[in-house]
Amino acid sequence: MARAAVVGAGMTKFGVHEQPLQELFGEAAFAALDDAGVGSRDLDALYFGNAMSGQAENETHLGPRMASHIGAAGLEVQRFEDACATSANAFKNAVQAVDAGVHDVVLVGGVERCTPETGKDTPEMTRIFASASHRQYEQPTGLTFPGVFALLTKRHMHEYGTTEEQLAEVAVKNHAHGRLNPRAHFGKETTVEEVLEGPVVADPFRLMDCCPFSDGASAVVVVNPEYAESFDDTVGVTGLGHATDIVPVADKVEPTATQSARDAAAQAYEQAGIEADDADFAEVHDCFTGAEVLATEALGLFEDGEGGPAAAAGKTALSGETPVNPSGGLKAKGHPIGATGTAQIVELTEQLRGEAGDRQVEDPSVGLAHNLGGDTGTTLVTVMEETA
Amino acid sequence: MARAAVVGAGMTKFGVHEQPLQELFGEAAFAALDDAGVGSRDLDALYFGNAMSGQAENETHLGPRMASHIGAAGLEVQRFEDACATSANAFKNAVQAVDAGVHDVVLVGGVERCTPETGKDTPEMTRIFASASHRQYEQPTGLTFPGVFALLTKRHMHEYGTTEEQLAEVAVKNHAHGRLNPRAHFGKETTVEEVLEGPVVADPFRLMDCCPFSDGASAVVVVNPEYAESFDDTVGVTGLGHATDIVPVADKVEPTATQSARDAAAQAYEQAGIEADDADFAEVHDCFTGAEVLATEALGLFEDGEGGPAAAAGKTALSGETPVNPSGGLKAKGHPIGATGTAQIVELTEQLRGEAGDRQVEDPSVGLAHNLGGDTGTTLVTVMEETA
Repeated sequence: MARAAVVGAGMTKFGVHEQPLQELFGEAAFAALDDAGVGSRDLDALYFGNAMSGQAENETHLGPRMASHIGAAGLEVQRFEDACATSANAFKNAVQAVDAGVHDVVLVGGVERCTPETGKDTPEMTRIFASASHRQYEQPTGLTFPGVFALLTKRHMHEYGTTEEQLAEVAVKNHAHGRLNPRAHFGKETTVEEVLEGPVVADPFRLMDCCPFSDGASAVVVVNPEYAESFDDTVGVTGLGHATDIVPVADKVEPTATQSARDAAAQAYEQAGIEADDADFAEVHDCFTGAEVLATEALGLFEDGEGGPAAAAGKTALSGETPVNPSGGLKAKGHPIGATGTAQIVELTEQLRGEAGDRQVEDPSVGLAHNLGGDTGTTLVTVMEETA
Repeated sequence: MARAAVVGAGMTKFGVHEQPLQELFGEAAFAALDDAGVGSRDLDALYFGNAMSGQAENETHLGPRMASHIGAAGLEVQRFEDACATSANAFKNAVQAVDAGVHDVVLVGGVERCTPETGKDTPEMTRIFASASHRQYEQPTGLTFPGVFALLTKRHMHEYGTTEEQLAEVAVKNHAHGRLNPRAHFGKETTVEEVLEGPVVADPFRLMDCCPFSDGASAVVVVNPEYAESFDDTVGVTGLGHATDIVPVADKVEPTATQSARDAAAQAYEQAGIEADDADFAEVHDCFTGAEVLATEALGLFEDGEGGPAAAAGKTALSGETPVNPSGGLKAKGHPIGATGTAQIVELTEQLRGEAGDRQVEDPSVGLAHNLGGDTGTTLVTVMEETA
């Protein structure tokens, strides 16, 4: 039994956008509403995600502005911020609300601008992103997020022998997928050689191991399972796990910092009544190539230490046994922070409907989304299933 | 029937604090947990509010850090931001979750530092606060929040003849109340003459019509009504309304911008099965003296246009017929943005328990909290009642 159903999904192209946040969000929201056949005035609430626009664009209290812009002023709106897991957490709260019968139909979505269109260049935006790390223990050391995930990945290489070539294979695969996605930030392929020749950002990551800063928005319409019966083409949300972990990263019990993902996955699988093996594909949080390897193991798609070899063997490619990031992932589709979580839900919806075009996974019935925030201080795992 | 029960409440003194955010929040959280007799590990979730610390202190993704600091790493945590209504919205979502049976026992709270302890002076912090106004239509005009509420109050003076002396009486009353509250930012009384001799900040507001920037934290333990039976000294949450309004302010239908408060109050009163007259006291969002006048009318405590005369006649004083802001309100207790909403809930809890000391309202059974965000783009109204 689904906890909720997604009945409409929409997103902007991820990349560089000039529009103000409300116009960018509106583009995704109207696409989701149109897809669902729902009007703004039919909504009971808006669960809205934005991570960094206070710092990036001096914009806060965006919830009512977004509601006003889509013709839904008056609506109950709440803004969530949990770093890169922002809109997955908004989605969780929305699913919880419709599952409990508090609301029948809600809009969930997120928006972010991270490119120099904000007026902030890449070094300044890197500093802003680093606000999600520990203010006293991490920021003073200069530890920004490439460094955080480099530390975790380096440890994984030490423990399991994961190689830079295997990491590069993740980038190559996600760029190949992204080239098939018309809404991806990057439309070009890359090669293992090109990745390995790139400048080092934070050892072991080179430039092409890192996702870009992107602008974009995404939104989905979520309804109560009973209410869903009046819609065509619904996709069920059958499990949704959420866990946090110790902050700062140095205090975590598990040195590759995957505990929150393991906890969230266990919770999601139990709710859905599935095992990891039942998943036909997954969208995972590949902010860096190493993060994808860690995620595929934490989700149980591969044994610990097997994530790198699996990627290198093509098991996670669109044609492989368990396609990972058919959308291109954060790496190639792009990463407008507050929009990333619900963009994964958009991808799961389109894949499970069989509407993913050139990047369609072959006949999937179960999909996973894995979205993390900060140094994995927050992770959410969602199970979605084709409606029978 | 209560939707939820508050079984523990705690807050720091509001004022100027040197501690990092997690230590400040911890002080309030541990006070609330101790008051409830609940351990960190008994919690099912944390609903956390913080409005501006990304901009003020380069700190985001605070939820997991707060959970880690109070010994509850792993907990489901979500951060809310809705400008000055931030932690009231966290509280609403928490009440909704326990009411629906999603969680049994949750911690709700907020923290903020707004004084120069953040490294930001008052002009810079005023600019940061203005991020909650419309980026394209309001910020470029230089309209900061004293200006927003000055416009609304000036309109009210034009429509109803509200006077500067009546506004000054609000400040005098709230300072008198604050002097009785050991946790208030300001411990001194003032006079109508002193208020009217102050420098103009934004006509009709003079310095003493404006609340201060404060540092502080507040927290409450909220439980499912059935689960509440095992606790002593619980207070029921019987109604909780939430509404947004059109942003920007110039587009609002109601020129004194009280529509969201009227909508939220109607929703809260209907849930609780009360009329405005049933309220024995109220904590309202007096960011400026004029905002208290508008709020008391929007809540239905007084007829439109009667809020100013009622304040001048002493009706809202501790000894009056409907005490308003017995805590001292934002004006004298202080206004650490993300902590203000749950601080109102702390005050309602202590008053309804009869534990408010020198500022105790006489034998109250019903209390209201009114917390707004931005240019009233968000308003939440809570009804709390003594447990029979």
